[in-house]
Amino acid sequence: MARFALGVEYDGGDFLGWQRLSKPGVAGDETVQQALETALSFVANTQIDTICAGRTDAGVHAACQVVHFETDVQRDPRGWVLGATSRLPPSVSVRWCVPVADDFHARFSAVARRYRYRILNRAVRPALGRQYVTWERLPLDVAAMHAAAQALVGEHDFSAFRTVHCQAPHARRDLQSITVERSADEVWIDVRANAFLHHMVRNIVGSLIPVGRGEQPPAWVAELLAGRDRNVAGPTAPPTGLCFLGPVYPGLFGLPDEVSA
Amino acid sequence: MARFALGVEYDGGDFLGWQRLSKPGVAGDETVQQALETALSFVANTQIDTICAGRTDAGVHAACQVVHFETDVQRDPRGWVLGATSRLPPSVSVRWCVPVADDFHARFSAVARRYRYRILNRAVRPALGRQYVTWERLPLDVAAMHAAAQALVGEHDFSAFRTVHCQAPHARRDLQSITVERSADEVWIDVRANAFLHHMVRNIVGSLIPVGRGEQPPAWVAELLAGRDRNVAGPTAPPTGLCFLGPVYPGLFGLPDEVSA
Repeated sequence: MARFALGVEYDGGDFLGWQRLSKPGVAGDETVQQALETALSFVANTQIDTICAGRTDAGVHAACQVVHFETDVQRDPRGWVLGATSRLPPSVSVRWCVPVADDFHARFSAVARRYRYRILNRAVRPALGRQYVTWERLPLDVAAMHAAAQALVGEHDFSAFRTVHCQAPHARRDLQSITVERSADEVWIDVRANAFLHHMVRNIVGSLIPVGRGEQPPAWVAELLAGRDRNVAGPTAPPTGLCFLGPVYPGLFGLPDEVSA
Repeated sequence: MARFALGVEYDGGDFLGWQRLSKPGVAGDETVQQALETALSFVANTQIDTICAGRTDAGVHAACQVVHFETDVQRDPRGWVLGATSRLPPSVSVRWCVPVADDFHARFSAVARRYRYRILNRAVRPALGRQYVTWERLPLDVAAMHAAAQALVGEHDFSAFRTVHCQAPHARRDLQSITVERSADEVWIDVRANAFLHHMVRNIVGSLIPVGRGEQPPAWVAELLAGRDRNVAGPTAPPTGLCFLGPVYPGLFGLPDEVSA
């Protein structure tokens, strides 16, 4: 058996999320995993199952999701990339494929995951690029948001930012960095952690926006974290602005630079 | 009568181009002008006709198209912006509105127009952002493209880059600047001219790409220009990668900075 890792890019707006559904969807391939496995299985002429670095929710995008799969089928990496991409819908493409050692696991080998949340911050809603941003009409105080967010850095119990549907056994995560910056008329929130709880980035963003609007002081975010109560934190920010930039693996696995420590 | 200028952003992928069709479209508002005039006329409760800075073709985007219109109806600029945007489809928004003097004309007052053409230059097709780029698989030599393009700067007869359907009385245009630069995995071609012929930017890009691929020497573009023969120049590049950044007006009209000299 050979093991391969793939870098996968997708526009989440067309999908019900990453994970294969136990029941078939109404209109064919409705999750990214289903679309990808259908394409890979066509190339292999046998069923291919994939394991991903981090499942994304409905509407969330990925610049470089990583999956691995095992197969007896002989194809060179280029064959997997071009063959699978040619069978995928326009909203998904396979960016690269590399052979990996048997001890590489897309989920368990990752030492971190990186997300970016993009907010278009101007008076009127977007037309160009509206598929990839969330719109906030009120001017956001980026410095206040950045300062507030620093309370989240480190290993903490993130129960305040965890959806009730989260199935993780515990809520402790190591949030390695979070920055809030302005880029032209957008506000970008970049977060890196060892792993994330379900809705964690969107719930953090949903609590940073009231700080940016001046409705809450920066210290509020530290209070929410300490209180561990999801019910008093901000709402879940929409999925449209969220993009999974990709996981990070130890360099010894030999993956492309963008996902390698 | 009061005269207003509007800045309009649109995703051209949803439209047959800017210009109102003489016959009604199959599915309602199928040009940007129709959609915009329908929205403005609703706000005014009477017919509003618009004149734009530069008509765009089917599939071409605009970051800041500018139009003007005249009306007896009393609305403040904010009312036109919010009212029209609320009646427009998601692929169009009105970014700003300013009252202008009677001698302002969206088309004739403009001293220049600016376009950007975005090429995603990598081995596999785009999924994220595919609505706004054209894909080129072969590595492009950006320095060669930039050098080749400099032959176009100045006032020339651009017949070599003009579609046969162009209705302009002559082909002389003053191309003020053209730059070809790499931005991450994209190549951006930025062009500014006093005015453009029909398909001129896309035809220029279509002749720069063979230079970038190494199929033609940089001097080829100068030869094409001098030859004035559309039949020997490169193909028309797809509309997807093209965005009308906006016109430029003399500062005395008091328009927002992004469209003011």
